[in-house]
Amino acid sequence: MAQGLTHLNDRGEAHMVDIGDKPVTRRRAVAEASVLAEPATVEALLSGSGKKGDAIATARIAGIMAAKKTAELIPLCHPLALTRVTVEIEAMNGVSGLHVVATAETVGQTGVEMEALTAASVAALTLYDMGKAMEKGMTITDVRLVEKSGGKSGDFLRA
Amino acid sequence: MAQGLTHLNDRGEAHMVDIGDKPVTRRRAVAEASVLAEPATVEALLSGSGKKGDAIATARIAGIMAAKKTAELIPLCHPLALTRVTVEIEAMNGVSGLHVVATAETVGQTGVEMEALTAASVAALTLYDMGKAMEKGMTITDVRLVEKSGGKSGDFLRA
Amino acid sequence: MAQGLTHLNDRGEAHMVDIGDKPVTRRRAVAEASVLAEPATVEALLSGSGKKGDAIATARIAGIMAAKKTAELIPLCHPLALTRVTVEIEAMNGVSGLHVVATAETVGQTGVEMEALTAASVAALTLYDMGKAMEKGMTITDVRLVEKSGGKSGDFLRA
Amino acid sequence: MAQGLTHLNDRGEAHMVDIGDKPVTRRRAVAEASVLAEPATVEALLSGSGKKGDAIATARIAGIMAAKKTAELIPLCHPLALTRVTVEIEAMNGVSGLHVVATAETVGQTGVEMEALTAASVAALTLYDMGKAMEKGMTITDVRLVEKSGGKSGDFLRA
Amino acid sequence: MAQGLTHLNDRGEAHMVDIGDKPVTRRRAVAEASVLAEPATVEALLSGSGKKGDAIATARIAGIMAAKKTAELIPLCHPLALTRVTVEIEAMNGVSGLHVVATAETVGQTGVEMEALTAASVAALTLYDMGKAMEKGMTITDVRLVEKSGGKSGDFLRA
Amino acid sequence: MAQGLTHLNDRGEAHMVDIGDKPVTRRRAVAEASVLAEPATVEALLSGSGKKGDAIATARIAGIMAAKKTAELIPLCHPLALTRVTVEIEAMNGVSGLHVVATAETVGQTGVEMEALTAASVAALTLYDMGKAMEKGMTITDVRLVEKSGGKSGDFLRA
Repeated sequence: MAQGLTHLNDRGEAHMVDIGDKPVTRRRAVAEASVLAEPATVEALLSGSGKKGDAIATARIAGIMAAKKTAELIPLCHPLALTRVTVEIEAMNGVSGLHVVATAETVGQTGVEMEALTAASVAALTLYDMGKAMEKGMTITDVRLVEKSGGKSGDFLRA
Repeated sequence: MAQGLTHLNDRGEAHMVDIGDKPVTRRRAVAEASVLAEPATVEALLSGSGKKGDAIATARIAGIMAAKKTAELIPLCHPLALTRVTVEIEAMNGVSGLHVVATAETVGQTGVEMEALTAASVAALTLYDMGKAMEKGMTITDVRLVEKSGGKSGDFLRA
Repeated sequence: MAQGLTHLNDRGEAHMVDIGDKPVTRRRAVAEASVLAEPATVEALLSGSGKKGDAIATARIAGIMAAKKTAELIPLCHPLALTRVTVEIEAMNGVSGLHVVATAETVGQTGVEMEALTAASVAALTLYDMGKAMEKGMTITDVRLVEKSGGKSGDFLRA
Repeated sequence: MAQGLTHLNDRGEAHMVDIGDKPVTRRRAVAEASVLAEPATVEALLSGSGKKGDAIATARIAGIMAAKKTAELIPLCHPLALTRVTVEIEAMNGVSGLHVVATAETVGQTGVEMEALTAASVAALTLYDMGKAMEKGMTITDVRLVEKSGGKSGDFLRA
Repeated sequence: MAQGLTHLNDRGEAHMVDIGDKPVTRRRAVAEASVLAEPATVEALLSGSGKKGDAIATARIAGIMAAKKTAELIPLCHPLALTRVTVEIEAMNGVSGLHVVATAETVGQTGVEMEALTAASVAALTLYDMGKAMEKGMTITDVRLVEKSGGKSGDFLRA
Repeated sequence: MAQGLTHLNDRGEAHMVDIGDKPVTRRRAVAEASVLAEPATVEALLSGSGKKGDAIATARIAGIMAAKKTAELIPLCHPLALTRVTVEIEAMNGVSGLHVVATAETVGQTGVEMEALTAASVAALTLYDMGKAMEKGMTITDVRLVEKSGGKSGDFLRA
């Protein structure tokens, strides 16, 4: 049985669940993703930004725009009006790679975890796209929720 | 310097590179992603498919549809006409989680790595969405290219 | 004269009408569509679901996702945040075919008839697409509003 | 078993089938839809076009634009470059209603039935939207393929 | 320094700014665009509307639909639920060309200048597309905000 | 009569014209747009790029992404697979403002004027969006085709 899967009804069929009775509250989620790459690729992506070019900016904007497309991509997500989206990208510590942190906020009836995760994922995919001519073996890893607040299911903070 | 980043011109500005002179060839890419989750969540997602429901089917379809949106999501990707997309999802061996394998093919002037990676990522995000009421801590990991063939840059096969 | 057509102004020009003064209320609409097909096609589509595969699930998800695209497809529809969408598909009684019922809900300033009708239509088109290799002559029929509630224009219930 | 459903693999899983080996040929499909409505509604929609306004033009354009969105709406449709789309709308003979005929063409590896059917459906839905302030009970019926040519599966012409 | 550019943070990075604390108010913006063209082209476009055809209607509908796509096109725009959109197109006085006026309204937390400007721009681009077989040299000019009301930054009225 | 407007049939109805018999050739178009703004705004936008931030990069990427959406925005445009898109933005000479030049290329059956014009327009709209907190009165002007080559209708070069 599909017990616990709220996106399936009692016959196991997918549906977009009813949120019409949930209160309108301010909601926030933060997600992260890491892109593991060779030092030369990381260096090229970073120097391709700042004074030199658009590499990091392109990934940041791709992530922000993807957050707005979440309900188009994830079949059972409710459409919602995001009130804030940020994507930050920087070199990882101790590992060769880039770290993406995406924050999404809304004032609405449902949470924004999927928006934050989608922004982080698409920013990471865009970094892969920018760097793939140098290194096809880059790996995106640790795409996950960091924190979440504002819903009735309680706050979440990754341990 | 942005040396090696083909998506930036010599001033470091993002552009969609010229592929007009590249030959039309048959191209194929395979990508994977893993979703690490508790056994109970994996079990619910799997049993929510097969005879019981739509969980895995929803993720598979989300991945296939996302492959078709790749050029909308990744700023410098060329639009292309995919000739085949498949997404397979099954339980992981030795680890509690689900493994996604996405294959994309086209007959065209540029490769389909990003289409395969986007399909795998969005299928994984959809699995997260389906299971998040049970476990917000699921992690998507090892999103990466498995193999690629058909372009002038040579074939790629993950070691 | 285009009397009675609220989507045209007094010069007959299309516009998206002003709903800014309408109250925010909970709104709901149910629509249906029927897909007439040979028994063998109906059987294949149904057995291609449940324990055997994704046919019905694919149509259900297509309908849910299409509901979210209504304002992109229907030129003068207002964008709105759906709070619930369901699509149910089952064999027809007494006739060889499949029956689709779509329900859409929102809390907003305008009704969701078009969302329910779009979901039902696209689910039916997807069933056609799934079955067309077997039977190109399938017909979609009786796409219509079943009930509507929540707006100032009064409730509607098909006789 | 899902025998005959080409969009499912032998495990019953949805996939976008491989068309990479199919020849590039000129392909054409014609589809129709009927919108049954009261004479007053039909009259308002028709007079809201021609010299008086945009009603029919809006539906025609919605149908043409929807044809271009077919691969976004129908999960397993291949994206393709339409070379021609027309939508014609006129009063029905002997029945009170409007008749929609949509034609789609491409030069490619797969047929355009779904594009023609989607154009006809969305044009019909838009006529409903334009007229629904007058008559919520309008019914869309007989959405079906009229003819198809250009593929290896042979031509189709509705009897 | 990027002083004054609210869409950049203090490191110069693009973000979608936080509007979660802004009051929900009724907001309205009007924008215009002009399409300069030869008298024969203007005449063909105008006569291609009214009783003769769909030229102006097509541009009007394109503008209305584009308003709904603003947040997809302009990277840092917040998605919002438009409550009204109109696009008016008429011959210019004293100059050979067509004048577009677009009005957008919402009840929300942020302004609709970009929606009005996008509607006017895309209506103008569509007029260009309709007329380009006659005159490729048409120029779109004076795309600008005419008035804006409803936000805390004060009303704007072009002098 | 709508003589000369190829997007209308002989009844004045909009259609997407048949290009199925046109040869596949390499096609290219260049378009421009100017954004007139106060020196302080121009300075902020320019310094918000390069080493300081993402302003110009955001507009460049918005233009490139919009080129890929042209057939979604302009109702009668054929969808096509762009093989190259570039957007360049720099300070104007002798006038206070920013100049946008967009280039689009394809190998196909129809021209890419609308893609280049759409890229230039949306890049200009994005510059407006980035700078509007400083100056709501900015004007976008001289949006026009600069050159075009590759189609049977002959090359175009603005005098």
